[in-house]
Amino acid sequence: MNERRSRRRETNEAELVAFIGRALSPGFPSRTLALGIGDDAALLPQTSGQETVLSCDWFLEGTHFLPNRHPPDSVGWKCLARAVSDLVAMGARPRCFLLSLALPARLSGKWLERFLGGLKAASENLNCPAAGGDTTRRDEVLINVTAVGECPMGSAILRSGAKPGDSIFVSGRLGQAAYGLRVVETSKRAINPRDPRLHRHLYPELRLKLGSWLARERLATAMMDLSDGLSSDLGKLCQASRVGARIETERIPTPRFSPLPGRDYDELSLALDGGDDYELLFTVSPDRCHEIPRRLFNTAITFLGHIRRGKGVFIVNGEGRALPLAGSGWDPFRR
Amino acid sequence: MNERRSRRRETNEAELVAFIGRALSPGFPSRTLALGIGDDAALLPQTSGQETVLSCDWFLEGTHFLPNRHPPDSVGWKCLARAVSDLVAMGARPRCFLLSLALPARLSGKWLERFLGGLKAASENLNCPAAGGDTTRRDEVLINVTAVGECPMGSAILRSGAKPGDSIFVSGRLGQAAYGLRVVETSKRAINPRDPRLHRHLYPELRLKLGSWLARERLATAMMDLSDGLSSDLGKLCQASRVGARIETERIPTPRFSPLPGRDYDELSLALDGGDDYELLFTVSPDRCHEIPRRLFNTAITFLGHIRRGKGVFIVNGEGRALPLAGSGWDPFRR
Repeated sequence: MNERRSRRRETNEAELVAFIGRALSPGFPSRTLALGIGDDAALLPQTSGQETVLSCDWFLEGTHFLPNRHPPDSVGWKCLARAVSDLVAMGARPRCFLLSLALPARLSGKWLERFLGGLKAASENLNCPAAGGDTTRRDEVLINVTAVGECPMGSAILRSGAKPGDSIFVSGRLGQAAYGLRVVETSKRAINPRDPRLHRHLYPELRLKLGSWLARERLATAMMDLSDGLSSDLGKLCQASRVGARIETERIPTPRFSPLPGRDYDELSLALDGGDDYELLFTVSPDRCHEIPRRLFNTAITFLGHIRRGKGVFIVNGEGRALPLAGSGWDPFRR
Repeated sequence: MNERRSRRRETNEAELVAFIGRALSPGFPSRTLALGIGDDAALLPQTSGQETVLSCDWFLEGTHFLPNRHPPDSVGWKCLARAVSDLVAMGARPRCFLLSLALPARLSGKWLERFLGGLKAASENLNCPAAGGDTTRRDEVLINVTAVGECPMGSAILRSGAKPGDSIFVSGRLGQAAYGLRVVETSKRAINPRDPRLHRHLYPELRLKLGSWLARERLATAMMDLSDGLSSDLGKLCQASRVGARIETERIPTPRFSPLPGRDYDELSLALDGGDDYELLFTVSPDRCHEIPRRLFNTAITFLGHIRRGKGVFIVNGEGRALPLAGSGWDPFRR
């Protein structure tokens, strides 16, 4: 698309909405959506015995991505993955999403096309079509995504169900996204979107099948997604469940890349505090732990430790010393 | 609340979320909400035969409000009213909302409290409790609200159902909000939130009962809310329905306040292009027009003209001349 068409497109909100609608129109059958982009609101048929699951997430220039560093298709992929991750964390399946986009005039050409390309790819990957949204002009890129999902009534896995004695598990390897971010931050060259060290940072994949399976089999007593980092998120799960926890340093699945320069960038702190993992953290009662395999749906599942009575969240190091696990993950209010 | 407590509150995202949750906790029975603020996502039970109605709206500092001019409680009221208005425009009833809020540190004390007060008031007025959201820190106030509603399957009133011969109606008086905005823009004094000329600009009320009644009785063939201004919005309804329209200048219910200085501020252009009305624009087939009273649920209902074949949208002036009605309402991409 040439610059002239790009410029014309964004002189009118209706044209921009129509362009976004065409770019995101599902390339897969969308039986769930009665009415999508173009009216005042989207319509979704309800089914008795189901619950609607709703979540929304900011994805803001400067805070969550750097427009001159991150590929636009990664911004598109990740803004949806981030919001849908909250549905996966409850064991729900995605149904549709709403996109709120504020866009500077200068990015309404190629950048917008590539952004929508990444968003469409995530939408197809997650089987989650666009249902509507809102657009406006702004001097910075502002994104907010509302993810809408569904699960059978009563099957959603909350943060609050962990009991003393439950085993704590995590999917995948932790800190890979944070490792990728450090590579981006420390490199002066343009990002190579195909660099395997950046994959989890740029195009996180969600553990959709694992989450659904845990909900369907009623295996997890509590679950959440790791978005801020294990050290913060385990504390949140424990607080919601009014329990404590004890995990072992040596069990934590750290990144498998070569070390990065800088003393703060050791593998363990990346895994504990890095954030942006979108892996699943869940607990399972003692009588059902044997049902959790070490690998499922192409994802490693690692046992980290146990839920305990009381309030403390501890990490046991290689010498057997238990240290309080301080929540040092991502918190926008502590930057 | 003193400044010290305010400062402490926003040093931690979890504390801010808890504060918002307490401030917005419904003072009215909320049977619809299975799980609200505090987990990964909100849960809403589904009922067979119903449709979920979803809409989201930006409300941004500088674009939609001026933080040093508009009272914080008006910002809170209006960001929710604006989003719920899209549900009302389909004849749906509100069920809950999600709040995405990005906030500068300096506004996390009194401003936040008053903002949440206005939001809570609108939430109670619209019977629409908070179900969740997302918060982050930012140097400007950014708000995005997702409104979630419900209507019986197939009863939602779309923009696309108007037919040639249908009568066009509008609720309330148009241009009152735009008049209020002009008062705010032209006055150098601090805003008096009780100034009746500002009421519709600061605290718009929605035509919830009228919208539901039109949907329940299947009276309206098409409907939308007037958010950008009649001159733009009537064109959108006609485009969606693939029809034209002809309305009469002298029928348009203009504001009933004393004139404002400046040649662009005549009453008719305020009513046609002003925007922010959140009144309902709807069409009714000839055989059912007699069922529309002149006043209902304490709101005037005004006949404006007719839907016609073809594409043109015309306005007939006092001398009987039909002029094309140019869409000159609010469009963030044309500022």
